[in-house]
Amino acid sequence: MHTIKDVAKIAGVSTSTVSRALSGNIPVNDDTKKRVLDAVKQLNYKPNFLAKGLKEGRSNAIGLIIPDIRNPIFPALARGVEDTARSNGFNVIFSNSDENIENEINSVNMLKNRWVDGFIFATASLDCQHIHQLREENIPVVLMVRNIEESFDAVVTNNFEASYNAVKYLIDRGLKKIAIINGRLSLSLYRERYEGYKKALEDHGIDFSEEICFNCSMANGNCYEVVKNYFSTHRDVDGVFATNDSKAIEAIRAIKDVGLRVPTDISVIGFDDIQISALLDPQLTTVAQPLYDMGKLAVEKLIKIINEKSKRKKKPQIDVVKSELVIRNSTI
Amino acid sequence: MHTIKDVAKIAGVSTSTVSRALSGNIPVNDDTKKRVLDAVKQLNYKPNFLAKGLKEGRSNAIGLIIPDIRNPIFPALARGVEDTARSNGFNVIFSNSDENIENEINSVNMLKNRWVDGFIFATASLDCQHIHQLREENIPVVLMVRNIEESFDAVVTNNFEASYNAVKYLIDRGLKKIAIINGRLSLSLYRERYEGYKKALEDHGIDFSEEICFNCSMANGNCYEVVKNYFSTHRDVDGVFATNDSKAIEAIRAIKDVGLRVPTDISVIGFDDIQISALLDPQLTTVAQPLYDMGKLAVEKLIKIINEKSKRKKKPQIDVVKSELVIRNSTI
Repeated sequence: MHTIKDVAKIAGVSTSTVSRALSGNIPVNDDTKKRVLDAVKQLNYKPNFLAKGLKEGRSNAIGLIIPDIRNPIFPALARGVEDTARSNGFNVIFSNSDENIENEINSVNMLKNRWVDGFIFATASLDCQHIHQLREENIPVVLMVRNIEESFDAVVTNNFEASYNAVKYLIDRGLKKIAIINGRLSLSLYRERYEGYKKALEDHGIDFSEEICFNCSMANGNCYEVVKNYFSTHRDVDGVFATNDSKAIEAIRAIKDVGLRVPTDISVIGFDDIQISALLDPQLTTVAQPLYDMGKLAVEKLIKIINEKSKRKKKPQIDVVKSELVIRNSTI
Repeated sequence: MHTIKDVAKIAGVSTSTVSRALSGNIPVNDDTKKRVLDAVKQLNYKPNFLAKGLKEGRSNAIGLIIPDIRNPIFPALARGVEDTARSNGFNVIFSNSDENIENEINSVNMLKNRWVDGFIFATASLDCQHIHQLREENIPVVLMVRNIEESFDAVVTNNFEASYNAVKYLIDRGLKKIAIINGRLSLSLYRERYEGYKKALEDHGIDFSEEICFNCSMANGNCYEVVKNYFSTHRDVDGVFATNDSKAIEAIRAIKDVGLRVPTDISVIGFDDIQISALLDPQLTTVAQPLYDMGKLAVEKLIKIINEKSKRKKKPQIDVVKSELVIRNSTI
């Protein structure tokens, strides 16, 4: 069997140039590349990066565990992760957990067995014993979007502040009774968005009312029905802060279906700025999370930890990126 | 270093039970699993599935190469791929190529080096020398959604027939002048949809006119502008067949922005049935591709080829799945 040295000898270059030419990650000039590829062909040389990884104790692969790639915030995150991983010579193995803890544990085990160098999770529920376990085993972990406790490295957005600003915007536009459509409070991001909402009301002398805090999680279902039920018998609310764009889209449909107009009768603000939000009618005013950049940042953070692995168990660092309000046509 | 035999001995089970308990893929009863995990802990045993893969000549990983996970048809396909791969003990490494042939070749090389057992491509352009090369090297390949020539195994939808039926539906509703918004004709799926459109017109005695065949590809850009330009000076078209939902969504916005109504003035039909299409206003009438099932089928096909690898280079099989017209509110 031929080795990389044989290829280098025939191509008349160093072994590291062969390595660069074959990895496809670092550019080498076309002529050199051709010489290397000709030599590879001549010798029928098969580089085995896995065997190399085994020897070096790393795989250059990372595991990305998300609830569901079909949830519209995850494609942009996943793309940020994959682009950044690839440009650093890492591959991304992705797995969908459906927010089910058993699925998540199974995926973690499967990927551990496959020997990834680290994990990115965007799935956090309070039950995170398996993530603590990874830390115990000195396997690098970064949380993305969804944070759990303060015990892990994470990339999140400024949920409290961004929500505060979104609700303040509605108040500044003269709205007096603003409902919130929220998700599961067991997720810190929804708790923080809820706190931002409440604080904005409080700071501007607007009474908080439990009655117009709607909770629409996957569990208690259909946001459309919840909003439609309320608005078919109540006409007092003039603003809605939805804690994600999918909820905002369902709310707008429900509001229209009871014969009210957006934004003339009711203004609606979302959160996320998923791709479709700019294409709706009306186009959605929303808090834009820099999803692609969050994915990018999470990978950069993870690779840094992988490279520093010996200095283990530092204090976790939580990076907070800034979301911005994007004003479109769903608010007056 | 301890081996799987040591674990099996302490747990009092067979090595294959240890293997099953650790893989997380095949259920074993809780008591057995606990005994295995206790033994693993006691011995600090680290199973190394990669080393095992190296020995057995397979990695149980597949490469999924798509243009961009943010393109709304790919999340459902990717989910179908990942679910099915995982339930068969395979991991999915995904890579975005942006329909750029160099990116695609780089990704293929990177994944080949990582030693995946096979590839699924949804990126096909005519320049597919690298895919032929994979076949030469006896690396299993399945194409998904986008077909190239007839030389590869593939899972595609009945583009011609489904398009024919969509256009026929518009004709049956009494529409007389039906435009098409199409993508790059270098992709077979757009050629087939175009042929279906033309044949439906022909069979129903409607003249074909190049003037209302709009071409909106990533390259010549903005579908919104193309449609808006035409409709701001022409009021004769009463139906639009858009060859994907994104184009349909842009067309509807353009039609509204020149002061026409959908569907009262112009009916619009899309193709794909992406998640958002049911949430639009009006909700989109469209051809529903069974995206999740196509992903599932592509993986099943690929794993079958991987398992049969010795009997190489059979005649390629192209599976055609059925898309169905979903009638909503964007057509009269």
